[in-house]
Amino acid sequence: MPDGQRADARRNYARILAVAEREVAAHGADASLERIARLAGVGSATVRRHFPGRRALLRAVFGERIESLCAHAESLTGAADARAALLEWLGALTDYSASARGMGEALAQDGLDDPSHESVCAVVLCRGLEPLLRRAAQAGAVAPDVTAAELLALVTGIALATEGRPEAAVEARRLLDLTVRGVSPGQPAAERAVPASAGPRP
Amino acid sequence: MPDGQRADARRNYARILAVAEREVAAHGADASLERIARLAGVGSATVRRHFPGRRALLRAVFGERIESLCAHAESLTGAADARAALLEWLGALTDYSASARGMGEALAQDGLDDPSHESVCAVVLCRGLEPLLRRAAQAGAVAPDVTAAELLALVTGIALATEGRPEAAVEARRLLDLTVRGVSPGQPAAERAVPASAGPRP
Repeated sequence: MPDGQRADARRNYARILAVAEREVAAHGADASLERIARLAGVGSATVRRHFPGRRALLRAVFGERIESLCAHAESLTGAADARAALLEWLGALTDYSASARGMGEALAQDGLDDPSHESVCAVVLCRGLEPLLRRAAQAGAVAPDVTAAELLALVTGIALATEGRPEAAVEARRLLDLTVRGVSPGQPAAERAVPASAGPRP
Repeated sequence: MPDGQRADARRNYARILAVAEREVAAHGADASLERIARLAGVGSATVRRHFPGRRALLRAVFGERIESLCAHAESLTGAADARAALLEWLGALTDYSASARGMGEALAQDGLDDPSHESVCAVVLCRGLEPLLRRAAQAGAVAPDVTAAELLALVTGIALATEGRPEAAVEARRLLDLTVRGVSPGQPAAERAVPASAGPRP
């Protein structure tokens, strides 16, 4: 490709991405690809050439933040308190997912079970989350059968359920807190009041 | 209104509702109102006369099931085990929300904080849930600051995060289970291993 064409392609890519970020922020993950093409002053074919499908476009829109969340996870993986590290990261993911319109939907639409969608948001985030989760499970802070995909689905759900509400970020944090500590983690108080010595021994 | 016109109106209502049920099941809460009118063989104005807005239509589509969930809640309110009663009902809500396409979105779109939307799905479900939740809180099985709206938002999120997945109902139940018992309810095992006598007394 001659230099002039390559420079044109780069400019188009940057322009489409800038418009897509605005449109997804305004209309969520369902933002119209035709409208994005029109506002970027390019044809639909040019959008498709740069972003083959909605997933690819969303991946680009949220890509920088997803990379930064993964870097954050990596920086926490050596932390002394494995539980606090996991909860800090889940909090950061929740804050971002609840405030970035379209992110929840982008994560929900991801085909985690589909090996052909390797590069999508949820898969990348799962890879970032897994070492944190493993350490927390080793420390006994999380049950060993809990998967990264499940934690991601819980945060995704919280983001989707609060999307568009006036206090979305505050509500999302509160729902994450409930999910972490459990709506009803154990026996009711009446049963808990039985002396510990009467319970089964480990 | 003469009898003939009234019978026509009833037939139109029933036809629009039947088409709406099919369209929402196929396309979710965003199903096209224009398409519903066309398939029902009526004008858009007739749809609007019977269902003034999308919320009203969704309320009618899910209304019967919401009434039956509320009746289920009422029947559980006298149960001896308040925690089991609450969890049974949350399970039933999760099963239905995860299998009825559009239900999660119908609940999420509801303006719980908006007093002008009194009759919408989430408000009705919250009223059904509240006595169950109050009894569970009195039994010490749920923290006293947890609200019905929060529990509903958690189930709504789970339904939205799993919608369209091949094993949506199974995954949704698993996520509910995690939410109930808590992703990380307490201190890590290392801290829990401290003898009970060293901990604070109630």
